[in-house]
Amino acid sequence: MSVSKRASESLSLTCPMFGAFSQTLNKMYNADTNPNGALNLGVAHNDLLQQKVFEKAKACLQLTPNDLNYGPSEGTQELRQLMKDFFTRHFHPYYPMNWTDIFVHTGAGASINQLFLSIGDPGDYCLIPTPFYGAFEYDVSVHTGIHILPVNLHKELQDMSIDPDQLESYYQGATSEGKKVTSMLITNPENPLAKCYSKKDIETILAFADRHHIHVVFDEIYALSTYSQFLDEKTEDPFVSVLSLPYKELIDPALVHVIYGLSKDFAVNGFRVGYVVNQFNGPLKQALRRSSAFSYLSTITDRLLCNMFSDTKWIDEYLLENRQALAASYTRTTEFLKSEGIDYIAAQAGPFLLVDIRNKLVSATSESDDLLWAKMLDGGVYLAKGSVFYIGQPGFFRLTFALPWDELHKGLTRFIKALQ
Amino acid sequence: MSVSKRASESLSLTCPMFGAFSQTLNKMYNADTNPNGALNLGVAHNDLLQQKVFEKAKACLQLTPNDLNYGPSEGTQELRQLMKDFFTRHFHPYYPMNWTDIFVHTGAGASINQLFLSIGDPGDYCLIPTPFYGAFEYDVSVHTGIHILPVNLHKELQDMSIDPDQLESYYQGATSEGKKVTSMLITNPENPLAKCYSKKDIETILAFADRHHIHVVFDEIYALSTYSQFLDEKTEDPFVSVLSLPYKELIDPALVHVIYGLSKDFAVNGFRVGYVVNQFNGPLKQALRRSSAFSYLSTITDRLLCNMFSDTKWIDEYLLENRQALAASYTRTTEFLKSEGIDYIAAQAGPFLLVDIRNKLVSATSESDDLLWAKMLDGGVYLAKGSVFYIGQPGFFRLTFALPWDELHKGLTRFIKALQ
Repeated sequence: MSVSKRASESLSLTCPMFGAFSQTLNKMYNADTNPNGALNLGVAHNDLLQQKVFEKAKACLQLTPNDLNYGPSEGTQELRQLMKDFFTRHFHPYYPMNWTDIFVHTGAGASINQLFLSIGDPGDYCLIPTPFYGAFEYDVSVHTGIHILPVNLHKELQDMSIDPDQLESYYQGATSEGKKVTSMLITNPENPLAKCYSKKDIETILAFADRHHIHVVFDEIYALSTYSQFLDEKTEDPFVSVLSLPYKELIDPALVHVIYGLSKDFAVNGFRVGYVVNQFNGPLKQALRRSSAFSYLSTITDRLLCNMFSDTKWIDEYLLENRQALAASYTRTTEFLKSEGIDYIAAQAGPFLLVDIRNKLVSATSESDDLLWAKMLDGGVYLAKGSVFYIGQPGFFRLTFALPWDELHKGLTRFIKALQ
Repeated sequence: MSVSKRASESLSLTCPMFGAFSQTLNKMYNADTNPNGALNLGVAHNDLLQQKVFEKAKACLQLTPNDLNYGPSEGTQELRQLMKDFFTRHFHPYYPMNWTDIFVHTGAGASINQLFLSIGDPGDYCLIPTPFYGAFEYDVSVHTGIHILPVNLHKELQDMSIDPDQLESYYQGATSEGKKVTSMLITNPENPLAKCYSKKDIETILAFADRHHIHVVFDEIYALSTYSQFLDEKTEDPFVSVLSLPYKELIDPALVHVIYGLSKDFAVNGFRVGYVVNQFNGPLKQALRRSSAFSYLSTITDRLLCNMFSDTKWIDEYLLENRQALAASYTRTTEFLKSEGIDYIAAQAGPFLLVDIRNKLVSATSESDDLLWAKMLDGGVYLAKGSVFYIGQPGFFRLTFALPWDELHKGLTRFIKALQ
């Protein structure tokens, strides 16, 4: 064998998201090599304040002689303390946070992989409500041997509320088939639904996880990109972090984990910064410390982040401006869609929304879904297919609206044209 | 269980190197907090040209707007192509290298861990000749489930030659005990012996690995820190990379892997840059591509390295100057040791050498070894204990000499005083 059994299993995993994306590569717009290529309205990226972030990052970029030497693999104490302050200001933790509760890795995907290596064993199952981010297949399963168990908890696609009985019956069904469920992964705010779970739903999830003593991981990477409170000022920020609840009263707190990262709310995908937050699991913290050297931030990135996050005024103003920009772009986009008679699922958070163009399908089949997607691509615009997020029905596409209006308008116009 | 079985196993690993180092933490010199603390002559670090490297790195540090976006997880094509040119110039590959043979991770330790996840399975054994770098315990075993099998192949500690019969008999012994050996890890140049394997020894290792169809990993992280050719101009560079041999003639080439990194030859521990090089194993390359997102270099580090390694004149001049500086510091150090009547093992490569102070032990026991080490530490100097490198006999300590002479001389003086 030229690779291990573990690697063979990892290679046999399918990730529909990357599969679809790889079909687009030669067709995408590039100013130099493919000026007539498709505009990218399919990646979860926020370009609205890119220039502002770039300038700040540039000002924070710095190298000192000591940066040539080893920094701690789990992040410097300075960075972890700044992130503790950041989480305290924005996630409102019920139990005061400690800087030692935070572990830094090279991206949220890396954080998920590191965490699952330490909370699950080969053959275990991780329950994930559909729809979900298509690349979890890799983050959760590569080299861990943990299988994903997708479960559909929503009566209607747009309905985020969780029925505890249904959740329980999925668990019982899996167990009766001999599947050992040891964890659950929740994305809040949701991707691709772009909506938040209510406090009640989070409590339902915690009670369920506690009853079966399984780990529950909240991926809160879009936490600070909620904007619906700016669309209707009578509403509040819809995001509730699990950290803000008195969760010890609902669950063995050793089982509760939060994932965060800077790629979405701060739009710095390229910097590769992710966090695992755990408050009450001593052995897990030890395990993360031991493995953190394998997903090790450079001293340069660590220092850049320290310089950036110590400027709390800039951070907090940026976050506010970003939410306002998302709200404005969402409004403009949905007005455009409405004027063109395109349905969509009303959103609250993140740089994208789901358009509902089931009425444009020749038939309600995945073939006709694929056909429509290919037509868009040929028409010069790339949207993400709903199927890569385990949306069980054809006709839904994820559209990124966090783009400069000129580019977005051009993309939307091509989208409408492709549907005709 | 608050962590997985896999994490429990990882936590049960002992790493004598970190164990010893953790005992020193409050005793080490720090200009601000502990000005009378112990000088660090125990870490494998090269300070000789730190200012030069720092200035170059600072000049190469750059951020462009596009760096906010994702770069490829296995490293940019530009970086991998520059590294291909670098390996071609300095490792003299027999089979022309391709940029797709090179995978970038966050440090050599991360590269080893990623590689072993893909070439070994839980319960497998990895054969490592003693003495070896104490932290391999973590790099090879954390989360992989692979056990280390230390084997003593050297008749005398200073003798690097490998007896093929002895190697074979270790393998047979392990097999008869039910141990499944699936890989072998060689450090060349050796740490802590600071010497190189001969071409003949490398061929012996390849033939052995081929006979049993096991993976063979060459950690060549000290490759370009050889300096003995400057001590005696009649000798040649003692380092022979496995890549420079026609290894296809000796072994299934899918089994041959090289680890490299920038922490030693370029003294940039803090940047966290490691490489896996594999030329002929297609499935492994796919597996490394799939897992590389979990040990993901930032666009900032990638760009810094591109800027640095595209200046081939600087790189090659630096490497030459660094070897000359190592030779000079080695000469000065060994002359000092000789004048004080301290024995050492003659070295060829890297920032350290092994001193042989067996005659200073009260008795030939590990207790008396520990006592001597503690006495040094109390006397204001930290050397690394031989035992953390699996040297089977007490009285050997690893001494780092790649330090500015003022500091080094102060440390050496304290060392001599502590022995009295």
